[in-house]
Amino acid sequence: MRIDDLDTPAVICDLDVMERNVAAMATRCRDIGIPFRAHTKSHKNPEIAHRQLASGANGICCQKLGEAEVMVQAGLPDILIPYNIVGRAKVERLTRLAKRATITVAVDSEATACGIVEQARADGVEVRVVIELDTGARRCGVQSPAAALDLGRALVRMPGIDLRGVMTYPSRPEAKPFLDEVVRLFRQEGLPLEMIGGGGTGLEEVSKDLGCTETRSGSYVWEGLSRVKSRDDLGPERCPVRVLCTVVSVPTPDRIIVDGGAKTFASYPPVPYGYCVEYPGIFLSGVSVEHGHIDTSASSHRFRVGERLTIIPLHQEMCLNLHDEMVGVRDGNVEVVWPILGRGKVK
Amino acid sequence: MRIDDLDTPAVICDLDVMERNVAAMATRCRDIGIPFRAHTKSHKNPEIAHRQLASGANGICCQKLGEAEVMVQAGLPDILIPYNIVGRAKVERLTRLAKRATITVAVDSEATACGIVEQARADGVEVRVVIELDTGARRCGVQSPAAALDLGRALVRMPGIDLRGVMTYPSRPEAKPFLDEVVRLFRQEGLPLEMIGGGGTGLEEVSKDLGCTETRSGSYVWEGLSRVKSRDDLGPERCPVRVLCTVVSVPTPDRIIVDGGAKTFASYPPVPYGYCVEYPGIFLSGVSVEHGHIDTSASSHRFRVGERLTIIPLHQEMCLNLHDEMVGVRDGNVEVVWPILGRGKVK
Repeated sequence: MRIDDLDTPAVICDLDVMERNVAAMATRCRDIGIPFRAHTKSHKNPEIAHRQLASGANGICCQKLGEAEVMVQAGLPDILIPYNIVGRAKVERLTRLAKRATITVAVDSEATACGIVEQARADGVEVRVVIELDTGARRCGVQSPAAALDLGRALVRMPGIDLRGVMTYPSRPEAKPFLDEVVRLFRQEGLPLEMIGGGGTGLEEVSKDLGCTETRSGSYVWEGLSRVKSRDDLGPERCPVRVLCTVVSVPTPDRIIVDGGAKTFASYPPVPYGYCVEYPGIFLSGVSVEHGHIDTSASSHRFRVGERLTIIPLHQEMCLNLHDEMVGVRDGNVEVVWPILGRGKVK
Repeated sequence: MRIDDLDTPAVICDLDVMERNVAAMATRCRDIGIPFRAHTKSHKNPEIAHRQLASGANGICCQKLGEAEVMVQAGLPDILIPYNIVGRAKVERLTRLAKRATITVAVDSEATACGIVEQARADGVEVRVVIELDTGARRCGVQSPAAALDLGRALVRMPGIDLRGVMTYPSRPEAKPFLDEVVRLFRQEGLPLEMIGGGGTGLEEVSKDLGCTETRSGSYVWEGLSRVKSRDDLGPERCPVRVLCTVVSVPTPDRIIVDGGAKTFASYPPVPYGYCVEYPGIFLSGVSVEHGHIDTSASSHRFRVGERLTIIPLHQEMCLNLHDEMVGVRDGNVEVVWPILGRGKVK
């Protein structure tokens, strides 16, 4: 089957481009000398996760327990879930997973850890944990090296908890004093530090400079258009995720409507919402729920109803998350139709 | 099962509130004297569509063919698809549907109509169509009454096409001269006008004033928070869709993190992204992909890890579209767990 035979809107992945991105990150991290962990929340696809491992990643990351369940079933052996797992239903699922694969989770409070302890004891497993540090991103994480030390001291006394170290996100140069002090305090106290995790696409060198034992990245697989636009050395040809769509209306010479809107592309500010491969001068200027509004004023091409266009969405991960399948293509041929197995796993 | 037994994040629908909204719109349209068609893109749930019909709606609307297929299979008898159906694969599905239920589609060009003609003749069916008018919204639609007349003249000569009238969106008072002229021209020419469709929640009286034969609304079922905030006579208690979530981190006294972010609530500008039922002073101030950032500075409550909160998302339709199921609740009890059958039907 050829791309032209696909009905629209269809999310496609240019496999050559994706494989180049995967290989480039592996090379980059080898050159820098920092171990690499692939975050799969960007694609939610175990087959791509296996390719990331084959390229040299030392493990994967999942942001939700439901995603991790998909990956464990697909044979991925080592997963970091950098998220506080809270609530009895989830902790039960966590301890079950910990019997089937190497699972490490983040905690930033004794409350989260205590929930895990109770279940781990009942199930007779040890759960690997790392302490999440808020080094400036103002999301989760303990607020100071002293707080990390306090939590570390508590965790090593808890049965069923296997403290492995710390993690933060994103890796920022400003985090160095915070991390250095944590390392000093943990070493002084004899607390475990097998893992010092950093992350963020493009921040691999920063992770190395911070003394991290590994760096996480997910979006490098897609190279989102927003990242492409902010850098001179990346072009849209580095973005493998594209939405094939069809012109359904040509109401005026300077405006056409395609068959996908906010529920196809994701409505992620700022505009423009996407980049057109065939006519780089035109752009997705707005989205209704199911209509894409394209400003064609910069093009002399006379668009017609039925014409097909290839749009690179602004935020490829959020776009992909709206769809049930993604079509892998190479040289214009359909090579694989992937159900997006990790999509919708909000729990 | 009680609400408290649900794992989080969970999308719930307060059935009492939803049923009040459905009944209120039915009463409103009866009082105004305008027939009403329920747009199901907001909920994508055939059981709710049946309730809308039972309340007096004369039919339903679907924005995508895939949604209409779900609704026809569930026994919904009369569907308007206000969308140009383009491309052979889709037109084949359209003619199949037209054999199973009363289906009407919008067209705004001869090109769209010609695609339908070819398939309708091959399949021996007639497809009902209405001409879409762009009365100022600058989306799809013919640009003038004269263009509507030209297209109408062409359509009535096409075999397999059953022209029923016209439609526009949204109903705006400024559209009256456009619509009046279309009516004059169509009557003069003897063209069909069984349907003059208008729409938009809250615009029922405008549709009546414009001379529409029916008005469409979808979001009235949910009464999105953005609409609530713009009106004094609507409060959050009118919004049945809520997201149950759990506090997973309390990093500082003025900030907590809950277990859902952009992939749970939808990231729809502007902030705040949601309203907290239990503590109306606090608000969802930001979203990462899987983390919700809540500003708690206005509350004296000491939040703790594990606490559950009920958040009304800003744009209920976009939120719901991210989830595979919705839990119907009444008086704290789970009454139904609905798969969202029409979700993901982008084609």
